[in-house]
Amino acid sequence: MEFVKNAIGKLVPTEINGEQVIPFKGVGKYKPEGKKHAPYIPSNVDFPLDGNKTVSSLKEALIKAGLKDGMTISTHHHFRNGDLIANQIFDIAKELSVKNLRWFPSASFPCHEHLIQYLEDGTIQRIEASMNGPLGKFCSEGKMKGTAVLRSHGGRYQAVQDGEVKIDIAVIGAACADPFGNANGLFGQSTSGLLGFALADSQYADKVIVVTDNMVPFPCIPWQIQGNYVDYTVKMNKIGIPEKIISGTTKITKSPDRLLLAEMTAKFCDVTGIIQEGFSFQTGAGGTSLAVSEYFANIMKKKGIKGRFARGGSNKYLVKMLEEGLIDYILDGQTFDLDGVRSMAENPNHVWTSPFTSYNYHSKGNFAGILDVVILGATEVDINFNANVVTHSDGYLLHGIGGWQNCLFSKTVILPLPLFRDRIPVVVDEVTTVCGPGELIDVIVTERGIAINPKRKDLIDKAKNSGLPLKTIRELKDEAEKICGKPTKPKLGDKVVAAIKWVDGTVIDVVRQVLE
Amino acid sequence: MEFVKNAIGKLVPTEINGEQVIPFKGVGKYKPEGKKHAPYIPSNVDFPLDGNKTVSSLKEALIKAGLKDGMTISTHHHFRNGDLIANQIFDIAKELSVKNLRWFPSASFPCHEHLIQYLEDGTIQRIEASMNGPLGKFCSEGKMKGTAVLRSHGGRYQAVQDGEVKIDIAVIGAACADPFGNANGLFGQSTSGLLGFALADSQYADKVIVVTDNMVPFPCIPWQIQGNYVDYTVKMNKIGIPEKIISGTTKITKSPDRLLLAEMTAKFCDVTGIIQEGFSFQTGAGGTSLAVSEYFANIMKKKGIKGRFARGGSNKYLVKMLEEGLIDYILDGQTFDLDGVRSMAENPNHVWTSPFTSYNYHSKGNFAGILDVVILGATEVDINFNANVVTHSDGYLLHGIGGWQNCLFSKTVILPLPLFRDRIPVVVDEVTTVCGPGELIDVIVTERGIAINPKRKDLIDKAKNSGLPLKTIRELKDEAEKICGKPTKPKLGDKVVAAIKWVDGTVIDVVRQVLE
Repeated sequence: MEFVKNAIGKLVPTEINGEQVIPFKGVGKYKPEGKKHAPYIPSNVDFPLDGNKTVSSLKEALIKAGLKDGMTISTHHHFRNGDLIANQIFDIAKELSVKNLRWFPSASFPCHEHLIQYLEDGTIQRIEASMNGPLGKFCSEGKMKGTAVLRSHGGRYQAVQDGEVKIDIAVIGAACADPFGNANGLFGQSTSGLLGFALADSQYADKVIVVTDNMVPFPCIPWQIQGNYVDYTVKMNKIGIPEKIISGTTKITKSPDRLLLAEMTAKFCDVTGIIQEGFSFQTGAGGTSLAVSEYFANIMKKKGIKGRFARGGSNKYLVKMLEEGLIDYILDGQTFDLDGVRSMAENPNHVWTSPFTSYNYHSKGNFAGILDVVILGATEVDINFNANVVTHSDGYLLHGIGGWQNCLFSKTVILPLPLFRDRIPVVVDEVTTVCGPGELIDVIVTERGIAINPKRKDLIDKAKNSGLPLKTIRELKDEAEKICGKPTKPKLGDKVVAAIKWVDGTVIDVVRQVLE
Repeated sequence: MEFVKNAIGKLVPTEINGEQVIPFKGVGKYKPEGKKHAPYIPSNVDFPLDGNKTVSSLKEALIKAGLKDGMTISTHHHFRNGDLIANQIFDIAKELSVKNLRWFPSASFPCHEHLIQYLEDGTIQRIEASMNGPLGKFCSEGKMKGTAVLRSHGGRYQAVQDGEVKIDIAVIGAACADPFGNANGLFGQSTSGLLGFALADSQYADKVIVVTDNMVPFPCIPWQIQGNYVDYTVKMNKIGIPEKIISGTTKITKSPDRLLLAEMTAKFCDVTGIIQEGFSFQTGAGGTSLAVSEYFANIMKKKGIKGRFARGGSNKYLVKMLEEGLIDYILDGQTFDLDGVRSMAENPNHVWTSPFTSYNYHSKGNFAGILDVVILGATEVDINFNANVVTHSDGYLLHGIGGWQNCLFSKTVILPLPLFRDRIPVVVDEVTTVCGPGELIDVIVTERGIAINPKRKDLIDKAKNSGLPLKTIRELKDEAEKICGKPTKPKLGDKVVAAIKWVDGTVIDVVRQVLE
């Protein structure tokens, strides 16, 4: 396999899983040529005129869809760790002796540990998606037959749209659906809020199967997934474990350290004028992020300021801001708690979005760049502001990219991070895996100081007399090393176990096998 | 030009406007091969990161979009006879000396008479769409340089999706839009309710321009048109004449003859069991159709029956049914009055649809076949139940197809028609232009009797002891001729002035030049 150094200095192969790939060329430097993937033209002739596409079981649907060796099967991760569908798909594949499948979920979770047996016996050749927990460990140890490919939410849409990944069969679990295939995640026992991660699959897959445990008479309203893209529908007893789909109890951190990070972040946004009338923001669903939202809300109330919109992952704190009139809209990509689901079902100003609208880099613009500020996490950040979200410092691939890369295009990107975790520095010389180029990351907020990217002179000017503890990123790194010692490098082999795609489909980095 | 006899016995050319076409092969007999149209892959690199795609004028937008000779320019007809955009586009084209354009609106109206000068001077080579009024007359008289092509709403989506018509520049007028290009027809001075007729254009055109007289800060909610498909946005002073967009006063007919037709139609649906718990229906916005809805409502109330959904064109009568709980949902393709607009803006159960969801024959099913009954109009129907909606008996092409062909796939199709108009028979030996094959048309209701298609033995059985005046279609024709005399045939030339496409893109008939 040939390796080349890409634009951020990482050695990456020119071929992955037997297909040519393009090394990262720099932010905004690669422009696609050619046409979007063109699905075959279907005809109403081949579908029941009365709109009833129901078949008796998932197995029958997969057989009718032509499941066979080497196919690409996609699922979405709106059920998170409560998904009951993906495992069944591959149980059926095993039963039918189908081999060499590519599983292309929008993300995988610990509940999919069940699939390791199929990765071992050749039913599944590889997973192309984030792998949280056990599957990530399995992959990191070099045990997967194929090479994993990790993409951001927007990158996944881009890959499907551009024909980089051709989905043979998409299986879309939905809390609510009708026999025609219209579906949403809003009503029923297995509510996931929305189904945006399955949008590309519905539009571009050859065959689309919608499964639900809540089949309603046509029309299922709203149709987050349009039945006109669907081949078969299946009524199942149970498609998800509700309490694992939605946490129900997303909580603000109680850790004083993290609260400090959140407070410093909010204060930074205040003094630099980011929090102003009509502004927009995105925070994640972690404890620190939730706390940032709360601090934002307090500042906004005190100043009598209203925001135009917040991007979700929604949760009860954002919903409260919407209901109190602190923001006009929530533009939501996934609901993280039951308040999020309720609000989305009830409130027309709580709007469901998709990776297409929010994140697809190969479209005529997307929402990410419109955001005034995003607050993100990272496992590591380095002295060039490059950041890592997929591997730990021990080299293990344990997290997905999510919308993280896509969000880097917002006007200001802030990473509130502890300076070290378990006595391992978070600010380092060089990150284990580059997921985002430093030029897009503006501010690192740690409990021991705030580092602003030298590119952002405007922010430095605005923050310098604020009383906030400004430091250089090198100072932060040195401080971390003073406390924890120089971090030891993980022992990695040569084998590439995963490729990290940039938002434009190029390869920004790879993950190598962990040797011990 | 070579002509062949198609499956319904009409002589049609194998080539139109220099392109090969497929003669109609029979209902459900033609299946497309190949792939959907694949637009070029855009990149965020080419769009402003902050999402602001506003340019100063429509002219600037058209120039930036690369307007040049021979291009296809599309517009939608949600503004109906109040459209102020299409004329300006071609004024600009004229000013820029651009020639030989194809105008591809979703329909044209009398307000576009202004464009006749451009059809004459070669700015516009042809119109591919329905042509109501003056443009239809112009075309009928053989004066248009190219051949018109008429498609149903679903057929237009199909043609764009399948790459049969490649749109170079789509101009989408919207009552409400944001600088990114998200747009809807719901809020502002030029409300049209929805923008579904522009959906295909937004998805498949090379360049998309959104113009509005009500630019709101991002995000424009809901986004009936997604800004991610949009290249440029333009703020204009006035894009439509509100009182001509929405009538505001859709009224039930007061004509005793038409009321009788409506009453007979409703009674027919009652006695044949079509009106039952959970049923669905579609009626148009004409005076007779509105009256049918009212009769339906009365029957439903009397029987304590609830319908699952009605398909619009919505109007105050349908809205009342929704608000009174007589139907669960309105699935709406276009709003015909202000109550329709208001309801769609307020009521989540008043759902906007598109030609894709409702009518596209080249999809994995559509909504039309799910409908229990549709009530449609026609200019003529013949003894084989073939019907005409585009030409009058004098040969003039004066109407569009609308969703009419698409609706023929519903479970029962009823045409309430006067037996004659201005002493010209409506039931004839052979229709001037076949728009819909008789095999899909079930019932003709006239003031002098009801003819049921012999194929529908089930309906004949159910209706025979109802007291309704059942007759054969020949009896109706004879009766019409007895009163009006045998109709004279129009004098037509050889020149084909327009082709009528079937829902699958094949040519079901042509319209020939009217000689006097």
